[in-house]
Amino acid sequence: MPDGELLFSAVPGPLPTISDVLAARARITGRVVRTPLLHRTIDGRDVWFKAEVLQRTGSFKIRGALNFILSLDEEVRRKGVVAYSSGNHAQGVAAAAADCGIPATIVMPADAPKIKLDNTKGYGAKVVPYDRATGDREAIAAKIAADSGGSLVPPYDHALTIAGQGVLGLELLEDLEAAGVMEADVVVPASGGGLVAGIALAVETHGPRLRVLCAEPETHDDHRQSLEAGRRVQVFPPAPSICDALLQPIPGELTFEINRQRLAGGVVASDAEVLTAMRYAFEELKLVVEPGGAIGLAAQLAGRVPGTGPTVVVLSGGNVDPALMKKAIG
Amino acid sequence: MPDGELLFSAVPGPLPTISDVLAARARITGRVVRTPLLHRTIDGRDVWFKAEVLQRTGSFKIRGALNFILSLDEEVRRKGVVAYSSGNHAQGVAAAAADCGIPATIVMPADAPKIKLDNTKGYGAKVVPYDRATGDREAIAAKIAADSGGSLVPPYDHALTIAGQGVLGLELLEDLEAAGVMEADVVVPASGGGLVAGIALAVETHGPRLRVLCAEPETHDDHRQSLEAGRRVQVFPPAPSICDALLQPIPGELTFEINRQRLAGGVVASDAEVLTAMRYAFEELKLVVEPGGAIGLAAQLAGRVPGTGPTVVVLSGGNVDPALMKKAIG
Repeated sequence: MPDGELLFSAVPGPLPTISDVLAARARITGRVVRTPLLHRTIDGRDVWFKAEVLQRTGSFKIRGALNFILSLDEEVRRKGVVAYSSGNHAQGVAAAAADCGIPATIVMPADAPKIKLDNTKGYGAKVVPYDRATGDREAIAAKIAADSGGSLVPPYDHALTIAGQGVLGLELLEDLEAAGVMEADVVVPASGGGLVAGIALAVETHGPRLRVLCAEPETHDDHRQSLEAGRRVQVFPPAPSICDALLQPIPGELTFEINRQRLAGGVVASDAEVLTAMRYAFEELKLVVEPGGAIGLAAQLAGRVPGTGPTVVVLSGGNVDPALMKKAIG
Repeated sequence: MPDGELLFSAVPGPLPTISDVLAARARITGRVVRTPLLHRTIDGRDVWFKAEVLQRTGSFKIRGALNFILSLDEEVRRKGVVAYSSGNHAQGVAAAAADCGIPATIVMPADAPKIKLDNTKGYGAKVVPYDRATGDREAIAAKIAADSGGSLVPPYDHALTIAGQGVLGLELLEDLEAAGVMEADVVVPASGGGLVAGIALAVETHGPRLRVLCAEPETHDDHRQSLEAGRRVQVFPPAPSICDALLQPIPGELTFEINRQRLAGGVVASDAEVLTAMRYAFEELKLVVEPGGAIGLAAQLAGRVPGTGPTVVVLSGGNVDPALMKKAIG
């Protein structure tokens, strides 16, 4: 393992298996929404949309957060949880902690979308802002955890987090099978890579044959580059993107170990294509999708998903400020 | 029956029964979306949202249109269908006709929302515009039907239309029962009154005990006035409202006959309250809801739904032009 890789993760622990995904489902069912699968035809191709924007907290993140928190020993859990996040993980952890009646402290960039900051506070969490350019959010969170005895809830690079996100994949398998779709490409937004890893794990065991691809901003295609190189590659310098949820510059260690063996590839989209996708979701799906959540749809609409068969596009989050939504639909 | 009542409907035919709703379900299942029921807490009250904006064509109207068209004799059906509509029924009939491989001609107000005009054409229907102030859409549609031999698809005042919309009520019963809700108030937008009548019919037979209320713009509260008077009352003069889907000035004959016996009352909301509701749907539900589809949510948020127990708000349509959406979320 090259030295550079150690910079971006503490010891991430064991790899999750399909058993962990099944256990996660048992743990979080009833606390999360079984989000619907919608259908449209795009350029003559059957496209299924996993409407995860309808999840509690407006993104998939609560699945992994709940699975992690519910797995803590009662005594440890009571001391509360800590997390760092650009917004969706923040809301997921805050809501999961509120569910469990424990305190949460979240380290968030001061320039995170207002809706994500407000919602995190709204779920009762304490928000500690930091400067994205100069602050070290992991160090800040680690200190809070050490001082309070609280547990750090990992945003993606942990077996329980990945397994929790993977529950979405189990739902996909069932809904596609019920719809008679026995083979499809599945396009999943990737930042740290926890969601796509969880889905890739979940769908390889039974049911329809699904090829999983990750989708990223063209300026943050570290997963695609890593898949091609066969090792974790960091995008540098980190270029801007309107996808505030997808700014992680390098795949996680655990997530990449899962993804490099299982993903069929990666697709990308530009900011302009993402805005077009958000407008499509508004007009055609009646769904509010945030930029990062629309990245797979953007690649689909741009004709960049390989093949001609059915595809599944995961719309992973919908927490977008009004100003950006207005720009998208304007 | 006072003379005035005859002005607004041709012979509307027999009243539908629960058997018609069950038959409608068998007929349209697989062609319509079983839309999800979402949950939030508002002012300490459990509120369930029937997300019918996720229905094909972006509103409930395709349920009734499909039920009507699929009930036509094969030979009659082949001659095509005709409808008049401010927009959502137009799209429902156009998509239902396309499903059945038959031609559709739709008479629409020239000032209908552009998204509704475009979508209706997009489903392959021929659109005949008329002037809302001076034209007689029923006469125009009747002439087209007579000339072409096509069947007029009634927007609300027909047993098959009402029964088709009622299928939504059957889904509600099942989903509420599964969620453990055994008693609730159900708030349903009303224009001609077909949706609320269908739901009222569907929910009285078994399962959770549901009290059904209609929701209207405060300037178009003809259902509420009619319920109070015990006879069909027309609002006059027709005042403006941003709820373009709810501008019918008097309840239907059949629909009122059903509703006067079954509804628990009516609630209203102002244009400003509707815009607030659209913003709530954007922020909290990640759903795009048009003004008419948000009228029940507007009444709920304004604290105008009686009682303190669980409520169900039907979000009946999501076809809104970008300019109005921007105004709502801005």
